[in-house]
Amino acid sequence: MKTIASISIIGSGNVAQHLGKALVGHVKVLSVYSPNFDHCQSLAEDLFAFPAERLEDLLPADLILVCISDDHIASVIEQLSEHPCVAYTSGAIEMDSIPRSKGLGVLYPLQSFNKDRTIELEQVPFFIEADNEVFAQALYDLTKTLSNKVVYANSEDRKHLHLAAVMVNNFNNHLVYLAQEFLKDKKMEWEYLLPLIQETTAKLQNKNPFDAQTGPARRGDQQTIAAHLAMLDGPTKEIYQLLSQNILKTYQNDD
Amino acid sequence: MKTIASISIIGSGNVAQHLGKALVGHVKVLSVYSPNFDHCQSLAEDLFAFPAERLEDLLPADLILVCISDDHIASVIEQLSEHPCVAYTSGAIEMDSIPRSKGLGVLYPLQSFNKDRTIELEQVPFFIEADNEVFAQALYDLTKTLSNKVVYANSEDRKHLHLAAVMVNNFNNHLVYLAQEFLKDKKMEWEYLLPLIQETTAKLQNKNPFDAQTGPARRGDQQTIAAHLAMLDGPTKEIYQLLSQNILKTYQNDD
Repeated sequence: MKTIASISIIGSGNVAQHLGKALVGHVKVLSVYSPNFDHCQSLAEDLFAFPAERLEDLLPADLILVCISDDHIASVIEQLSEHPCVAYTSGAIEMDSIPRSKGLGVLYPLQSFNKDRTIELEQVPFFIEADNEVFAQALYDLTKTLSNKVVYANSEDRKHLHLAAVMVNNFNNHLVYLAQEFLKDKKMEWEYLLPLIQETTAKLQNKNPFDAQTGPARRGDQQTIAAHLAMLDGPTKEIYQLLSQNILKTYQNDD
Repeated sequence: MKTIASISIIGSGNVAQHLGKALVGHVKVLSVYSPNFDHCQSLAEDLFAFPAERLEDLLPADLILVCISDDHIASVIEQLSEHPCVAYTSGAIEMDSIPRSKGLGVLYPLQSFNKDRTIELEQVPFFIEADNEVFAQALYDLTKTLSNKVVYANSEDRKHLHLAAVMVNNFNNHLVYLAQEFLKDKKMEWEYLLPLIQETTAKLQNKNPFDAQTGPARRGDQQTIAAHLAMLDGPTKEIYQLLSQNILKTYQNDD
């Protein structure tokens, strides 16, 4: 196979929906399978595809694209030995951990997909890996129809990217949650923070985070840090302390 | 004074520049003073104002707006006893800590201002406080010419907002720095993270952070957390562990 002209999709979650809808028009989406048949039917309808009631009913295609949660990837792919080419979309799962001897690949979009949110896929970096060069090239070409940033990366690199993604996405979201809880406790609306939150990340589009750093810990302002710690308790205090200490340390020899 | 028709500005940093430029057209900016006379002249020129070489040369105005770093606010305001109305722009400094008996106010923009970045001030929340109602109202009216979100808040509330701002701005930026350092160590570009970073915060415009949380700790996926910790060391590992533990705890009774 040099060009992927048809696919079948396993999964009906956010990744399956976003990638499926973007791929329609570039390839023929033949069928969709999902353990939840209602979701399967709904997505299949959106993609003008056949809704498979069982995994065995999935229509053969140039590529089976597996868009499901990490813990089911290995067991589902094990059941796809009839299909010559299979790729999954996870950052954390190494190809070596999948029980399949050939025709295995990865197409990992480094983005968080959510219902009711439009993602400009052209800007999303996709990381490609496959167990042979022809398949890797075919996956690359397919993904190039979706995004301007398609890169080959092995399982190790992908794991590193996934870890970094957890830090900037999951942890940053949790810090906003902790700030929200703190303000709620003081009877204030967390939404006041939204323009600042937006600017914090918008700034990074043309400034690296080392130079973009501001705030009491960046200035070595121990008095404000102490005043803030006195207003906090529990894990939020611990998190404030650890992060402030680390910012202080990062810049201690800088000025 | 019912309406503020003229101001003089102390300071020539990012806050002075952004607020000064936005205020021109709404009020007459009479003069600017900054210990750095070059910066003072440059800003004064931008604001069609008189550049004061010494603090004593500042032209009397309805309002003296003090836009300088926290540690100098008290000592500078102490020297302004000739001027009837003075306001500063800091979130962290309580009015009680300023040695001035009357005509003192605050106008705190909850935003991070940087050179070379345009901020839509209409969206920025401003918090107003003053030692008398007439002055508070005048500050409110002045600020309303800049922003749609002007709110009265006492020193206590402002300190809380400032703490929350440190968490969502300073700490989130530092986490991006740590992710960058991790990827640099693995010979990968941190810029791959930018679309994800943008989406993480864009999502919060219409979803609260509790519901927006995703990732291994949110799913209780101990295997991925352990794999990530094995790839980390030093403070980054400690920060990963503390934040993951806290996310696990936050959602432990949720599903």
